[in-house]
Order: sequence, then C-alpha cells, then structure tokens
Amino acid sequence: MAEAQSDSDHLFLRACRRQPVERTPIWMMRQAGRYLPQYMAVRAKVSFIELCRTPELACEVTLQPIDEFGFDAAILFSDILILLEAMGMELVFAEGGPRMPQPIRDRAQVDALPVPDPEQTMPFVTEAVRLIRKSLAGRVPLIGFAGAPFTLATYAVDGSGANKSFPHTKALMFTDPEAAHALLGKLASSCATYLEAQVAAGAQAVQLFDSWAGILSPRDYREFALRYAKQVIDLLRASPTWRAGGVPIIYFVNGCAPYLEDYATSGADVLGVDWRIDLATVRARVGEGVALQGNLDPTCLFLPPDALRERVREVLDSHGSGPGHIFNLGHGVLPMTDPERVRVMVDSVKSLSQRG
Amino acid sequence: MAEAQSDSDHLFLRACRRQPVERTPIWMMRQAGRYLPQYMAVRAKVSFIELCRTPELACEVTLQPIDEFGFDAAILFSDILILLEAMGMELVFAEGGPRMPQPIRDRAQVDALPVPDPEQTMPFVTEAVRLIRKSLAGRVPLIGFAGAPFTLATYAVDGSGANKSFPHTKALMFTDPEAAHALLGKLASSCATYLEAQVAAGAQAVQLFDSWAGILSPRDYREFALRYAKQVIDLLRASPTWRAGGVPIIYFVNGCAPYLEDYATSGADVLGVDWRIDLATVRARVGEGVALQGNLDPTCLFLPPDALRERVREVLDSHGSGPGHIFNLGHGVLPMTDPERVRVMVDSVKSLSQRG
Repeated sequence: MAEAQSDSDHLFLRACRRQPVERTPIWMMRQAGRYLPQYMAVRAKVSFIELCRTPELACEVTLQPIDEFGFDAAILFSDILILLEAMGMELVFAEGGPRMPQPIRDRAQVDALPVPDPEQTMPFVTEAVRLIRKSLAGRVPLIGFAGAPFTLATYAVDGSGANKSFPHTKALMFTDPEAAHALLGKLASSCATYLEAQVAAGAQAVQLFDSWAGILSPRDYREFALRYAKQVIDLLRASPTWRAGGVPIIYFVNGCAPYLEDYATSGADVLGVDWRIDLATVRARVGEGVALQGNLDPTCLFLPPDALRERVREVLDSHGSGPGHIFNLGHGVLPMTDPERVRVMVDSVKSLSQRG
Repeated sequence: MAEAQSDSDHLFLRACRRQPVERTPIWMMRQAGRYLPQYMAVRAKVSFIELCRTPELACEVTLQPIDEFGFDAAILFSDILILLEAMGMELVFAEGGPRMPQPIRDRAQVDALPVPDPEQTMPFVTEAVRLIRKSLAGRVPLIGFAGAPFTLATYAVDGSGANKSFPHTKALMFTDPEAAHALLGKLASSCATYLEAQVAAGAQAVQLFDSWAGILSPRDYREFALRYAKQVIDLLRASPTWRAGGVPIIYFVNGCAPYLEDYATSGADVLGVDWRIDLATVRARVGEGVALQGNLDPTCLFLPPDALRERVREVLDSHGSGPGHIFNLGHGVLPMTDPERVRVMVDSVKSLSQRG
C-alpha cells in the first residue's frame, strides 16, 4: 500500500493539472461494477439502490478495484439519477434499466421541482464520501460526480434511457424551449450544489457525465448541453468550497467528436474522450489548455493480452508523452469483461508510460 | 403528376452525380413507415415481415410518401435483415425489435453460410422493384438498398440490436479476427450480389446502410467497416449489370463525424451524413469529389412550422448552393412524427432551395 500523499502529489491530480508525471495515471469508468466478482458478492445481498444508499457498502465497493488492480483514482459509487430522486422524482430500478414513472413534460412540473439541499436529501452520499476518504487514507484521490444537466433532462423527460432518440426530451426542447431551458437551469443549479457538497465532504476531483449529449446537432449541443455544463462548472468554481481547494473538474461527453472546438470551451480542467476518435486528433483540435482523459474502446478488454497491450500502447502513443493525459476507457467497462484483462490494461499503462 | 423523365433528367440522380439542379432534391429515410396513417392501415392487415414479402403491398407503401408529399425519390420498402434470412439465418420480428435466435459465434458457422442467389431466395424483392418501377412510371427514381457488411454482422453475431455495444460482435472481431473477416467478406459478396439483382430489376440508385459503424474506433472502422463497404462498392461497380447503367451508390454511416477523411475514400458517389455534424464541416473535410446527403435532425420534425423552416434553411445554407446536395434527415423519421410536419419540410426544401 502506497504511503499517504498530500493532494498535490497524487499522480492523477497532477495529470489533471497538466503537471509533469513519472507515468500516465489510470482509472476506469464503472470500475466498481458488475464485471467484478467481489462487487457481485455485495450485490447478492442488496439491491443496486440500497447499495447506493448505504455508505459502508458504497465505500466497500468503491475500494474494491483500488485494492484489486491498483487504479490511480477511486470514484464514488453512486448513480446520476440519485439527484433526480432528491428533486422529488420517483425512481424505479427495474429489469431493462432505471425508470421514472412520472416524467417531466410541462412547465408546471418544471416549476414544481426543488433545488435540493444535498446534506438533507442525500446524506448517504456525503457520508459515503467521508467514509471513503477515511478508508483510502491518502492512497489515491477520490472523484465525486454528477450527471450533466442535459443528460439528467433526458431521463427526467423521457422517463428512461430506452429510446436513445429521447423523443420526449427533443419534443420539449423544440415545442416549449422556455420550459426546457427552465428545467436545464434548475438541473444546473442542483448539480452545482450537489458537487459542492461532495467537494465539501472530501471529493478531490469531480466528473460531470454528459452521456447522451452526443445525440444533439452541433447547434443544439451548444444551446442545450454545453451551455448548462458550463453553468455547473462556473457555479461550482464560484463557490467558497471550491475556491478553498480548487479540485479539478472533468467533463465527459460520450460521442464528443462532432463538437471538439465547442467542447474545448467548457471551462473544465479535463475533457473525457470516448473511443471513436484518436487522442492525437482531439489534442490537435482542442489545444494544450486542457487535460484529456481516455480513450480505450471498452470492448478492447475482450482482446487477448498481447493484442490488448498493443491497443493500450496505441492510446498512449496517440496522446504522446506531453502533460495532461489520464488513461481511461472511452466509456464504462462492460459487465461481461474478464477482470484479468483489466489487470493487463492497468499493468500495461503503468509499465508502458514510464518516463525515462 | 410529373411527366415521365429519362433517368438522366431526374433531379435526384443529377444531384447524386453533382450536376446542376434547379433546386435541392429531397427524400427521407424510412419515408414509408409508421408515422404515416396510410402505412399503418396496411400494417393493420399484415405483419411487417409479410409486408416485406408481398410485392404488391411493398409497392403500395413505397409509393405512399411520393403521392402524399412529393418526395424526389422512392426507396424500396424492405428490411436489411432480409439478406441474413436469405443466408439461412432464422429471423424473428418480435416486440422490442428483430432477433436472430441462432447468432453466428464461430468460424464453422461462418463457413456454413451461403452467398445467396437473390432471384432464388428473395424473389419478392426483385419482383417488388419491378412492380414499383412500373407503378412509378418515371415520376421519380427508385432507390434500392442493403445493410453494409459491418452492420449486418452486428445483427448476425449479437443476434439483435438490443445491446448497442454489440459485445459479441466485438468479441468475435477481437478474439477470432479471421472468423470476423471471413464473415464480413461473405457478407460483402452477398450484399454486392443482392444490390446487383436490385439494379438488374430496375433500381436507379442504391444505398448501403452502415447504421452501427459509428460504434467503432477509427482504426476498427477502417479495418472492419469501411474496408467491406468498399468491397461491396468495388464488386458492384465491376459487375456487367452496374456497368450498363452506372447507377449512383450512396453510403451512409450513422455517426460519421469521427471518420470523415476515411469516409471520403469509400468509393461511393454520395455520402450520407447524420445530424451531429454541420454539412459545411463535412464538405470542408471530404472535398468536392462526392455528393452529400442529409442531414436534418429527425426530431426537428417536432418543431412548430416556422422554426422547422428555419432549421431546413440552416441545413441548406450549411451545404450552400454548390452541386451535390440531396436533402434528407440525418437518420430515419421517428414513428411519433406528425405527417403534416413532413409536408412542411418537403415544401420548405422545395421553395427555399430554388436556384434563381
């Protein structure tokens, strides 16, 4: 086990700030998840939502991949929809994914939504953050997270992620843009307050997940997604809590390739990149002012070890040894992944990225 | 009703060949479909697959949107999975989409697949093409189509489109690349033969749908998708049938933004463009040697008429008045679309794109 380090020494945090590193840090989206037998053992006893709501168990599964593979950062175990539930929306976890039986379809429903106080409505989240920080004891930093406003809106308005065209969300945006903007503004305030509470409780970086922003035309991306992600980032940076520590802010759009020049203006310290585009192309188009996180295709973890190592090398080479790269998958790890391949990936990143 | 025209006079065909046009032609992916009450009236009597297999009914629904809205091209009513069924794979159309109960998972299964003779195995398709040509009587050209090899492989290997990561397809590509390449090569031969039969029966243009190629990394797109789309295009162009008429070939990748430079090398006459990227950007990156088809966001059809007209204008302006633009949606029309908005789109394209 590594010695406890001061925040500024952590490899992951230095890479987020584009400072020099001995090697490229690595963590993995959904690293605490169904591909891990020890996670499934916990899940055999409790439902997904109970797990999110029980700080001791959330802490346990958050640490599992750190102990098992030696990732360079931990990420809070939770779900982006917890925030919508805290805003008063009923949330059902069923076969086929989460569902909101009373979706938001009009302005009156938007106006009725509160901006929740996280410590009041989601005490289990901030409690989990505190517990995880204590259990990590400085080994690696802890990342907090929230869904970005547009992505939260797709669930709030369509009621589920079943139809990936999100027709109800688009219909609201297009037929009642004022209601859509009111909803997105309220979600932005809620997100910022939520992330602020996570930082106050001890999160050392935060990631904003815009998982569905990639369904938008460039114009709609700017107007309905980027604008509100920026609003969250600006609100968070303006808060006394954030100003005390200045934790790195990561913004991730799955399917970011069409919007790179706009993406670069988000105000985040780090941009997450999915696997559909080479990091070299992204770097050339977003410039040097931001760190990049990504971007191995999650299905590359099905490759035999030698071929997987080559793919890891390609991702590292694509970014190059300049500052500001955090290795990650281009999206969450798939449940059918063999944990031993995850180990190959982590070990490959660590050995192949050593600076002379 | 317009007079019958010779092939070379049709607006749509001239635009495909980047020849001068009086105005921008328009057709719409899935224009014969569930948003249309007259289509639903036919479907009330027969199942989807029976409709595909009955030339008289396929002809009837193919013509419905031409009669109703005055589109500039008709597209054969069929399904990309018909070809897999002709290759001996069982196909079930159920709630939640089509399913292949015996997916391809190994080399022996690949080797057992035949390259089908379309006139023998799918006589209803070529018969439908002949009937539609006769019924259209030269009003507008008829487009034939097939799924591109990679997209067909995702259904053949994963067995359905339910998991959009297509983990089984990726696993086959990565753990048994020889089997994957053998499958894709066989699908390319089958596609080319199938499209050749449609052209022989009277199709005046063909479109290759690579609906799921957008899930690939740039390297895998080149190796597993583009390579086999090119193979289909090359095989088709080399056939005596194609050489007799030289019908335009359209290639459509949904989510093409990450691959534009590669996309431009497909050998197609026309590249389909989804709505996530501006046509101006695409034109700048693919050059002048190819026509572009697209790319209004299908959900823009939820907009009120005035706002919809503005979006139509933006798409037209984004390409500009240079040769080689066919107006289309960026993906298939959504079932919940109001047909009256389709009319607004068609009329807007026709009036706004008039050349002086």
